[in-house]
Amino acid sequence: MSSSNNDHDQVKSAGLFERLWGKIVKFGLMLKKLGQDDPRRIVHSLKVALAVTLVSMLFYFEPLYDGFGLAAMWAILTVVIVFEFTVGATIGRGLNRMMATLVAAALGIGVHRLATLSGKQGEPILIALFVFVEAGIVTFFRFIPQMKARYDFGLLVFNLTFCLISVSGYRDDEVIRMGFERTNTIIIGSCTAVAVCVFIRPVWIGVELHNQIATNMEKLANFLEGFGDEYFIVSENGQTRDKSSSLQGYKSVLTSKSSEDTMANLARWEPGHGRFRFRHPWKQYLKVGTLTRQCAFKIEALNNYLTSETQTPQDVKSIIQGPSVVISSECGKALKQLATSMRKMTKSPSNDPHIAKSKDAAEELKAVIRSSLCKHQDDSLNIIKDGAVALLLFEIITCTEKISEAAHKLASQAHFKDVKPRVTPVQENSGNDGPHHVITIEG
Amino acid sequence: MSSSNNDHDQVKSAGLFERLWGKIVKFGLMLKKLGQDDPRRIVHSLKVALAVTLVSMLFYFEPLYDGFGLAAMWAILTVVIVFEFTVGATIGRGLNRMMATLVAAALGIGVHRLATLSGKQGEPILIALFVFVEAGIVTFFRFIPQMKARYDFGLLVFNLTFCLISVSGYRDDEVIRMGFERTNTIIIGSCTAVAVCVFIRPVWIGVELHNQIATNMEKLANFLEGFGDEYFIVSENGQTRDKSSSLQGYKSVLTSKSSEDTMANLARWEPGHGRFRFRHPWKQYLKVGTLTRQCAFKIEALNNYLTSETQTPQDVKSIIQGPSVVISSECGKALKQLATSMRKMTKSPSNDPHIAKSKDAAEELKAVIRSSLCKHQDDSLNIIKDGAVALLLFEIITCTEKISEAAHKLASQAHFKDVKPRVTPVQENSGNDGPHHVITIEG
Repeated sequence: MSSSNNDHDQVKSAGLFERLWGKIVKFGLMLKKLGQDDPRRIVHSLKVALAVTLVSMLFYFEPLYDGFGLAAMWAILTVVIVFEFTVGATIGRGLNRMMATLVAAALGIGVHRLATLSGKQGEPILIALFVFVEAGIVTFFRFIPQMKARYDFGLLVFNLTFCLISVSGYRDDEVIRMGFERTNTIIIGSCTAVAVCVFIRPVWIGVELHNQIATNMEKLANFLEGFGDEYFIVSENGQTRDKSSSLQGYKSVLTSKSSEDTMANLARWEPGHGRFRFRHPWKQYLKVGTLTRQCAFKIEALNNYLTSETQTPQDVKSIIQGPSVVISSECGKALKQLATSMRKMTKSPSNDPHIAKSKDAAEELKAVIRSSLCKHQDDSLNIIKDGAVALLLFEIITCTEKISEAAHKLASQAHFKDVKPRVTPVQENSGNDGPHHVITIEG
Repeated sequence: MSSSNNDHDQVKSAGLFERLWGKIVKFGLMLKKLGQDDPRRIVHSLKVALAVTLVSMLFYFEPLYDGFGLAAMWAILTVVIVFEFTVGATIGRGLNRMMATLVAAALGIGVHRLATLSGKQGEPILIALFVFVEAGIVTFFRFIPQMKARYDFGLLVFNLTFCLISVSGYRDDEVIRMGFERTNTIIIGSCTAVAVCVFIRPVWIGVELHNQIATNMEKLANFLEGFGDEYFIVSENGQTRDKSSSLQGYKSVLTSKSSEDTMANLARWEPGHGRFRFRHPWKQYLKVGTLTRQCAFKIEALNNYLTSETQTPQDVKSIIQGPSVVISSECGKALKQLATSMRKMTKSPSNDPHIAKSKDAAEELKAVIRSSLCKHQDDSLNIIKDGAVALLLFEIITCTEKISEAAHKLASQAHFKDVKPRVTPVQENSGNDGPHHVITIEG
């Protein structure tokens, strides 16, 4: 009986071990996938490790350590706290931390001096009072929306440093030395973090935003290009629409607002890099993003008709099929064109042939609706559904036009390259399409 | 001439002073408004100031200071870093900081011991290697989505403490004392922050989420209740729709996803409070929120027809007016009812009479569309627009029903109170409507 119990225990522990091993393997695979999905994550981890190792040299080398002593730990702390995935976030945090420490250390030293004037009895009371008032005010300032967006971390560090310097000044009279040490080591830490972040395979959040806006347009374009086939043709066979799931990529655009806002805020910290200048028109990106999202709302409505279980019969659908497919696919092409121009950072031609074609098709569709849609009087509800799809397509044209206008404004504000105009196809000067061969619009 | 110059300078400086004063006044008014909009902000600022002042006592009182020395600064640092506006966020940060410090300090001490074994030459190299590997791995772990959502701050603190303890151990041989000091003071700081946050007028983020979900439903309800009057009646007078701006409150619901996700994540840290238990069904709140947002997308589409410049003529609109107004207002009432029940934390009756009424009106509207809408053959485009409004109203009924189902599930999962059933209106027992007089559904 005891042997059978032992066996049982062994089996149980083997099962436990296998389950544990299974979990470890699963975790490992998940980590691998994270790295494969975006190898920059691995690079970032190595960069942080490098920066931390670099500042820890302040401890290992005698001459460096003699200068700072244990205060060198603030440098390590700063690197870990400041180093973020993107350049914008790292610079933002680094500058906030340096400036806030500098100002707060100076103020803290001042308060310490003021408090010592009141004698050993009054000093702690006066310091406590100052700390209370300062902490209250700075905490309240963090609620100011403009402050929260860009200087929230700075206010936190200000609060921290001020309290630290003025309070520990009560015990350590060398408060000036302490203030300097903290400020210097924090500057060393911030600069190390920023330097490693910028000079080793930097991830610019401005570029991320730029790409995300273009990707969002492409997602809408994919839906619109696929919509015609999915809605009008597949249903002919009476099949269920499994393929439509490939068109659902636009869904993420519906809720992309907050990530775009954050990105634009951080991008403003970044210096000029590549073809992005320091004062790149990030706000205009947000405008394009908002219009894209509004278009996504229309597409969400259109998607309802695509995925609805009660489909309009094919004979009703076929009334509007021709021009509808044209509108949808031409708007899709227009958006794809805009996205491509944005990715290449070129100005796209301002009068888009795709939008013009979709507008022609819209006129045609209106005529169809006027002339023949209501002929099917026995099937009013389906006619209305058909008509609603048409109306949504009209709205999508308007949206696409608005996106196009905003994207053109962006291209001009951000000084995107002009594309070589194809005026005279006879004249061949294909060798000369460098950046100098441009027509400047702003003069 | 020099006197005129002086005058000019005086005028200029007076102007400068006035402008500066104007800015200060404006800033002051803005601060006042921030406080008036949400007085809890002022309370929070005072709470932070109080907590910081409390931990700074570690410096002022001789016996306390003797125990910790300058390490007491970690307590101040912790309070400033951990103290957030809501209880959930504060507890989350506090627990993360305490646990991460404890584990990392232990590991850091272990690594220091291991490194000292390799002699004075090998020690810095070995420590640097450990730090590099640890920083790389922990930084990479921060990319794991589940980790990021709840333990991001913990991983940061782990990284920080491990580097700090193992690196400064190279200079200060009392590394165990240092680890203990850091851990103890951080525990003191975290507990102070959490205690002040919880015991003085706490702001529960769970309650915030609960209220936001209810508010969002109310915003949709306001639109739906007002839609009928705005769309069908005002346009009778041919006036422009200025009032419609009062209905645009639903717009914020379109982009509320990320704030709801964050709130639900933080709410899970909160202990039971009032009628919210520890394992309150926060995920179900997110489901109700998602369905509410989907309904907001439909309302966005409906709003297009409301604010469109080319309005359908009144005679076409009037075809669908009767049942449309009923659907819209009944769905609005249903949503308002659900929101009210949620606020009161009561179970609303599962078969909602408002939804039933709106469904009856939908049948009526379908009949109207089938029988008479296509009679106006000369005005197909307007008929289609009218029909599209009707279709959206049908979809909104479906959405409202889904929201209602999810809200009922939430009410049952969260053990909301049953409302006294009005079965026998003859029997009067109005004195007995306490929480004991309930019909348990779960048994």
